[in-house]
Amino acid sequence: MNVVTIGELMLRLTPPRHERFVQAESFEAVYGGGEANTAVSLSCLGDQAVFVTKLPAHAVGQAAVDALRRYGVDTRHIVRGGERIGIYFMERGADRRPSDIIYDRAHSAFAESSEEEYDWSAIFAHADWLHLTGITPALGKSTAALALRAIHEAKKRNIPVSFDVNYRAKLWSEEEARPVLTSFAALSDVIITNVTQAKELFLLEGGDDEALAAAVREKYGCKKVAFTFRRTLNAERNVISAALFDGEALFRAPEYEMHMIDRIGGGDAFSAGLIHALGKGMKAEEAVCFAEAASCLKHSVEGDMNLVTEGEVYALMHSSSPRVLR
Amino acid sequence: MNVVTIGELMLRLTPPRHERFVQAESFEAVYGGGEANTAVSLSCLGDQAVFVTKLPAHAVGQAAVDALRRYGVDTRHIVRGGERIGIYFMERGADRRPSDIIYDRAHSAFAESSEEEYDWSAIFAHADWLHLTGITPALGKSTAALALRAIHEAKKRNIPVSFDVNYRAKLWSEEEARPVLTSFAALSDVIITNVTQAKELFLLEGGDDEALAAAVREKYGCKKVAFTFRRTLNAERNVISAALFDGEALFRAPEYEMHMIDRIGGGDAFSAGLIHALGKGMKAEEAVCFAEAASCLKHSVEGDMNLVTEGEVYALMHSSSPRVLR
Amino acid sequence: MNVVTIGELMLRLTPPRHERFVQAESFEAVYGGGEANTAVSLSCLGDQAVFVTKLPAHAVGQAAVDALRRYGVDTRHIVRGGERIGIYFMERGADRRPSDIIYDRAHSAFAESSEEEYDWSAIFAHADWLHLTGITPALGKSTAALALRAIHEAKKRNIPVSFDVNYRAKLWSEEEARPVLTSFAALSDVIITNVTQAKELFLLEGGDDEALAAAVREKYGCKKVAFTFRRTLNAERNVISAALFDGEALFRAPEYEMHMIDRIGGGDAFSAGLIHALGKGMKAEEAVCFAEAASCLKHSVEGDMNLVTEGEVYALMHSSSPRVLR
Amino acid sequence: MNVVTIGELMLRLTPPRHERFVQAESFEAVYGGGEANTAVSLSCLGDQAVFVTKLPAHAVGQAAVDALRRYGVDTRHIVRGGERIGIYFMERGADRRPSDIIYDRAHSAFAESSEEEYDWSAIFAHADWLHLTGITPALGKSTAALALRAIHEAKKRNIPVSFDVNYRAKLWSEEEARPVLTSFAALSDVIITNVTQAKELFLLEGGDDEALAAAVREKYGCKKVAFTFRRTLNAERNVISAALFDGEALFRAPEYEMHMIDRIGGGDAFSAGLIHALGKGMKAEEAVCFAEAASCLKHSVEGDMNLVTEGEVYALMHSSSPRVLR
Amino acid sequence: MNVVTIGELMLRLTPPRHERFVQAESFEAVYGGGEANTAVSLSCLGDQAVFVTKLPAHAVGQAAVDALRRYGVDTRHIVRGGERIGIYFMERGADRRPSDIIYDRAHSAFAESSEEEYDWSAIFAHADWLHLTGITPALGKSTAALALRAIHEAKKRNIPVSFDVNYRAKLWSEEEARPVLTSFAALSDVIITNVTQAKELFLLEGGDDEALAAAVREKYGCKKVAFTFRRTLNAERNVISAALFDGEALFRAPEYEMHMIDRIGGGDAFSAGLIHALGKGMKAEEAVCFAEAASCLKHSVEGDMNLVTEGEVYALMHSSSPRVLR
Amino acid sequence: MNVVTIGELMLRLTPPRHERFVQAESFEAVYGGGEANTAVSLSCLGDQAVFVTKLPAHAVGQAAVDALRRYGVDTRHIVRGGERIGIYFMERGADRRPSDIIYDRAHSAFAESSEEEYDWSAIFAHADWLHLTGITPALGKSTAALALRAIHEAKKRNIPVSFDVNYRAKLWSEEEARPVLTSFAALSDVIITNVTQAKELFLLEGGDDEALAAAVREKYGCKKVAFTFRRTLNAERNVISAALFDGEALFRAPEYEMHMIDRIGGGDAFSAGLIHALGKGMKAEEAVCFAEAASCLKHSVEGDMNLVTEGEVYALMHSSSPRVLR
Repeated sequence: MNVVTIGELMLRLTPPRHERFVQAESFEAVYGGGEANTAVSLSCLGDQAVFVTKLPAHAVGQAAVDALRRYGVDTRHIVRGGERIGIYFMERGADRRPSDIIYDRAHSAFAESSEEEYDWSAIFAHADWLHLTGITPALGKSTAALALRAIHEAKKRNIPVSFDVNYRAKLWSEEEARPVLTSFAALSDVIITNVTQAKELFLLEGGDDEALAAAVREKYGCKKVAFTFRRTLNAERNVISAALFDGEALFRAPEYEMHMIDRIGGGDAFSAGLIHALGKGMKAEEAVCFAEAASCLKHSVEGDMNLVTEGEVYALMHSSSPRVLR
Repeated sequence: MNVVTIGELMLRLTPPRHERFVQAESFEAVYGGGEANTAVSLSCLGDQAVFVTKLPAHAVGQAAVDALRRYGVDTRHIVRGGERIGIYFMERGADRRPSDIIYDRAHSAFAESSEEEYDWSAIFAHADWLHLTGITPALGKSTAALALRAIHEAKKRNIPVSFDVNYRAKLWSEEEARPVLTSFAALSDVIITNVTQAKELFLLEGGDDEALAAAVREKYGCKKVAFTFRRTLNAERNVISAALFDGEALFRAPEYEMHMIDRIGGGDAFSAGLIHALGKGMKAEEAVCFAEAASCLKHSVEGDMNLVTEGEVYALMHSSSPRVLR
Repeated sequence: MNVVTIGELMLRLTPPRHERFVQAESFEAVYGGGEANTAVSLSCLGDQAVFVTKLPAHAVGQAAVDALRRYGVDTRHIVRGGERIGIYFMERGADRRPSDIIYDRAHSAFAESSEEEYDWSAIFAHADWLHLTGITPALGKSTAALALRAIHEAKKRNIPVSFDVNYRAKLWSEEEARPVLTSFAALSDVIITNVTQAKELFLLEGGDDEALAAAVREKYGCKKVAFTFRRTLNAERNVISAALFDGEALFRAPEYEMHMIDRIGGGDAFSAGLIHALGKGMKAEEAVCFAEAASCLKHSVEGDMNLVTEGEVYALMHSSSPRVLR
Repeated sequence: MNVVTIGELMLRLTPPRHERFVQAESFEAVYGGGEANTAVSLSCLGDQAVFVTKLPAHAVGQAAVDALRRYGVDTRHIVRGGERIGIYFMERGADRRPSDIIYDRAHSAFAESSEEEYDWSAIFAHADWLHLTGITPALGKSTAALALRAIHEAKKRNIPVSFDVNYRAKLWSEEEARPVLTSFAALSDVIITNVTQAKELFLLEGGDDEALAAAVREKYGCKKVAFTFRRTLNAERNVISAALFDGEALFRAPEYEMHMIDRIGGGDAFSAGLIHALGKGMKAEEAVCFAEAASCLKHSVEGDMNLVTEGEVYALMHSSSPRVLR
Repeated sequence: MNVVTIGELMLRLTPPRHERFVQAESFEAVYGGGEANTAVSLSCLGDQAVFVTKLPAHAVGQAAVDALRRYGVDTRHIVRGGERIGIYFMERGADRRPSDIIYDRAHSAFAESSEEEYDWSAIFAHADWLHLTGITPALGKSTAALALRAIHEAKKRNIPVSFDVNYRAKLWSEEEARPVLTSFAALSDVIITNVTQAKELFLLEGGDDEALAAAVREKYGCKKVAFTFRRTLNAERNVISAALFDGEALFRAPEYEMHMIDRIGGGDAFSAGLIHALGKGMKAEEAVCFAEAASCLKHSVEGDMNLVTEGEVYALMHSSSPRVLR
Repeated sequence: MNVVTIGELMLRLTPPRHERFVQAESFEAVYGGGEANTAVSLSCLGDQAVFVTKLPAHAVGQAAVDALRRYGVDTRHIVRGGERIGIYFMERGADRRPSDIIYDRAHSAFAESSEEEYDWSAIFAHADWLHLTGITPALGKSTAALALRAIHEAKKRNIPVSFDVNYRAKLWSEEEARPVLTSFAALSDVIITNVTQAKELFLLEGGDDEALAAAVREKYGCKKVAFTFRRTLNAERNVISAALFDGEALFRAPEYEMHMIDRIGGGDAFSAGLIHALGKGMKAEEAVCFAEAASCLKHSVEGDMNLVTEGEVYALMHSSSPRVLR
């Protein structure tokens, strides 16, 4: 399946091991961002992912492009130019010391780009699916407009749209976000969100998870609503699960209590797993389990991106415990 | 608060990851020592820490000084000269393989220094508090004398003295240590110790922890007695807690079961937390919780020193589980 | 005790930390192989281990030799020549992502060597014990023949033979392996195996572990039968235990649930522990506990080899929890 | 320009810094091979490079594919399967200690592949140029046949063929190589070789370089003959130059005395520079200077591949000394 | 001597070894900036350096502060707040491949700060000297104003001002820079510049270096004019020299042809050496030699900062070749 | 040839790359010492080297032993016990910044050992040669006595003794050293020294090198006198040469101007080369060339030890420039 994703691609700088920022004499450098992570994950699962963004024309911008090409993402529609690449610093937490993220993403080439700069016909030439997140409209009016444009291009071609709400309090207030994100939700076929967002951002109510999912589905007229759940035991141990409502029932994926190698990108891996599963025609029950297994595996992979194959996801879905084969 | 600390600052050499000494082709190099760790921790918490020691005049000695300056410690009163800097080798344990420490600290510049070499008036010019540990007198008669001199300088100025008993069996026998450490205890306002030391070193008895703490307080005439507790589940998991007796009641801090990144300096971080808390006027109940939270966070930080802010300690005190904010 | 071991020594290439193969820009390089791991472990425990193999005459072959010399193994009988050193790639798993091993061992100098190339008299000049595993005969007819030759050399000298069955499904089918491995079992004094191999490979039955061990002992006429047990909780946590049947009773070692630093070589460390213990005259009950403690410690050591001393194994056998001594 | 290249892609393992093999505890891992290096270099210069080989289906084989995708090479026609990826170990020399290379490439998936496995129509669908080297036929009859097949596919489509003679004494004798390599030369439009090969392998004579080049051109009926020159001052310093004969005159590129960061791939970078230059219609005089400047820059880049842009090559061609711009 | 310096402090990110940006999986992280480099260098030479800037309140901003404190710089007057820390990426060149610098410094906390934010009385409380560079006014009107304010504060206190012209074409055009930089020159006691800037920026003429220096001195009414010279042989080898005009004669320092470890900060080390020398009362002839030797040593030190002692500078001034002492 | 060497084995700690001590966050760890370096070098050249010293019984002492075993040195006569292993810190210089060495070797197990602790019969059981240096007597009276004892043991067995004078001004004054070192010279068969030591320490005179060597030979009654020469161009470039006087003529080895990877151990490699050459019966002319080529190669190898084979030394002796073979 050919999946188009649009968003920001940032340079992530992480001190080695569990060093604090004030100790770091070097940073591990990876590139990531919600939609790009989903694109790479889709490519590793076997889909053709097309990733669209804008990056500076300099060599660090090129390195960001290469980070996606390496894993098979189609980067030909990335626009080059602008001032800077967004950066975020990530300090790994440990035990009760939480991970710390410092964003330095203002004024990025993508955040300051406008819809006219992108070649929409070429981008959607072979597209079967469009995926967006709520981060792109949060970056500013211009990116909100281009995200909307992307949806309209998808609609024009009868391509399904998945939308990961992904409200980020560091980027905008709930009041700012609500009208924008609800307008995106109303244009989406698959909405990926969580209970808190459904209640506090979308102002919905529901006695239980299923009722709440049904309320989301009804209000925004989408086909499927996915909820992800996460409990933070400490900086290294989280419990995740997920559920998918298809209009008839809420199907729950198993809960995974995880020792995490890298916390970032777990949600993006879920989105990729879900899109891949739905694209392959899995039923809701299987799809949510596939997506949740993919997300679980992400937490064992260094960096933002879920470098696992479809076979590895199936293996986790179907087996009880990992073994060394030899 | 201006806190004076005096002690040895050593070079710590640690094989990378979980390598054994016989595998190591390199060593991570940090500088540390009980009192220096407390000084850095105090500085990170917002106090002005003055650290006093003697270090060789060569470039490795300078690197040790710089390791403290980096985190804001006042190092102007460190005397330079002497033969060598004390060294200790530390092999990280894992699971049931315990960590191993090899000391190479004999003949260090500090251990062979004498009280006449230090400018006591300058050291105490702005002092509000003095902190010592039982390691300094364990290094030899000369350092025992200078530690005693420091206490007398503090007394002259009506500055409170905290004393972390810190009996080290590798440095001296209980018989050698007892008369010396009890003489220090008798001059201290705050005694930081544990149940084993209270019983076996100070030869006190008490039905329960509170009775034992009361016995310490009564015998040495101090104002407060802190007990720290540690259970070793394995080389990576410990359970710690603490209690503080202020003459009226024994207040207990919560127990933390921890996955540890670095075991060294947990006690020194407790001392720093306690001094900071008392200096800010916290009551015993709050102070012991603050100190224990600081100590817990230390175990998640690489190296000997507790590089956490007051805000981070409060966050742990008041919250249930760490989260990534973004 | 002078212990002769014969087998393949490979170069192991491991991506750093928890990186996947597709992320790796470097590999940690260690040398290992079932019998070589046992030889190094024996040397660290205080025995004189003689390791026999064939390695290319080039510098990487020399590095493999040096990796054993470093820990005191007698490498003078290693034949130099042939095409290549066997290689295996090892990707560390994490949480639910299993470790992955890719073998590239075909055509190795050892696999293509023949018994005539080795100086058997010199090899066994001081030998007190011979140890083999089922991997050597799995590499081909030529190595099967030389392993058999080694056993005959041992028998000629009345030297006990221990045999770790170690059936590897990636190297041969059960049908291929059964006649070969049973012929080796029939010549061994100590058989190290597990319940699955006893049942599926040796086609034995037994109501419980003891009955099964007795069946192995009876069928192959050996003196002792050791069973190892392993449950895989996830890629980082395993539970191991072991039992030893001496003809009279089945003695069980305690179960260890472990956080593992390196999974490879746990079984080889058990073999070394068992040989060392029996060589020192420990009774079955103590010997199996010693071997199991040695195996447990291996999982906390990086690389294939169990770099622990006899004293460290005893310490684990006799104590409840590890502590930092200082 | 769309350039098809066919050849082996190997894993290169290099000890860090200037360590010898017997010191190495890790290896830097890059992927390379004559034709693949040329493909990546062409891609960085702005061409569309199509690289064809066969690689194992496992994750290390995938990492090799990814190493090319990362820099924009079209890898869709790489066949997956077979036993192993070729490996070579490279020890960096220093001063008078020469670099050492140990090949472990026998039995590789590519070496054992046959022409039927490749989809020749798809490979040449958009091809403008074919590039081969003398290494591929040296690997065995099967790869010699597939290289010949590639030339015939090119001829069928009237696509120019460049051939880097690249005689490797470690792979075959001059007697074995001569008939094969001359048959390839006779089918090529551009022959890249050196004076020694022209004389000793092709058994040509010529008073000077121009006469010798003319003899090559005449004998094999090609359009252009390139000679590369290299003098080894020591393991870190080489002097290179080149010349191109177009039937009318021998044009010489300037001589570069270089401090080398990485010696491997200098010739492959020359080939890429030459193909790119000729593809862009540069005249012989400019083309050889462009190719030589590209080759010179390669020696300043770590790994096998010449990661420089067309602009950077021009900059060296046209400027006297490099400067930091700021 | 107490020297006040004001300017931007940036995070510098450098790929390891000689890797290109497109290869980098990590960055070495150091902090630097023209004036900060001079401050650290002065501190290492034995002066008390006060560095003034504005940095974000977050942990990466704190790491920047700590990088100066570590070497003894007084950082108490650094203002904390604002959006971001300036960043620059630096790719080490090699041989003929030039080093590449990518600036990402727009919108930094310092660039957007204004003179009201700084406590000028406190900053100059103990000041003996003020040092500025032409980079600060290049960052914008606000920083130009605060630099001017600093000069007026110095003038008020009769403190000498040194000014390193440091025209950067990437920050502003000559037309924009000329009026600003000449106004700073006109207020300075010591002007540090080079022949190109004197001619093209200051539009002066002079038959030879001495005449040109005299012209600068006359036009701007300063006491001393220093010229630095640099010839770039390649990315690793430069030739530097310097001259100082004191109104009577132009004194030349010896020329150093250098193999450079790190090119950045050579000019800042010269400024520090000159200020230190003049502060100690050296005559022009000795001062320029001291400054030039300091600058030469900087090129052998990793990072932006010249971590050498006064004794080491003297040793180079007075000796012919370095030796290992043992 | 079985060569006995006796001396101190130290832990060497080196900051990575060209970092200064004040920058270092880690140290590369190798083990070395004049005589141990010669032992390892002899082992790599094919001799059986026996190294004798005393090292602490702890794990870092074991790592030192293993560093020699790894390269085939017979370490069975190393005595274990005592307080500490000698340490030296080594900062790599660059260009005009000299390398810096800080010794921390006082109170080492070897320096405080006495001749009674060693099993002289076992040590010399198979000995063909004894090698000593002037460092061992410099460590104290006790080690001077044991070095003398070793010579007497050699004399008793008619084994030749080589003595590398190696006067170290950091360890003792010329006045202290002269009587001791001359007494050793007088007992030696081969004296390795340089012109400065011959003149200033041995107070000899000679119009030219040959006359001076003859004077040494005559005064001390030895068979051969070797002179080494070193000119320091800068911290990275040295010029070395050597000469050997056999009573008839002074034979000169070629001069090597070198780019050095590691300066330490060059002289020890010369000694090993000379002993090996003389042991193989080479004539003086060839022997000095072999020794000088071995010494030259050492400077291209990281660490203290000359890890090169006899074949590699011959290759340098006989060829003009190094090449990559492939």
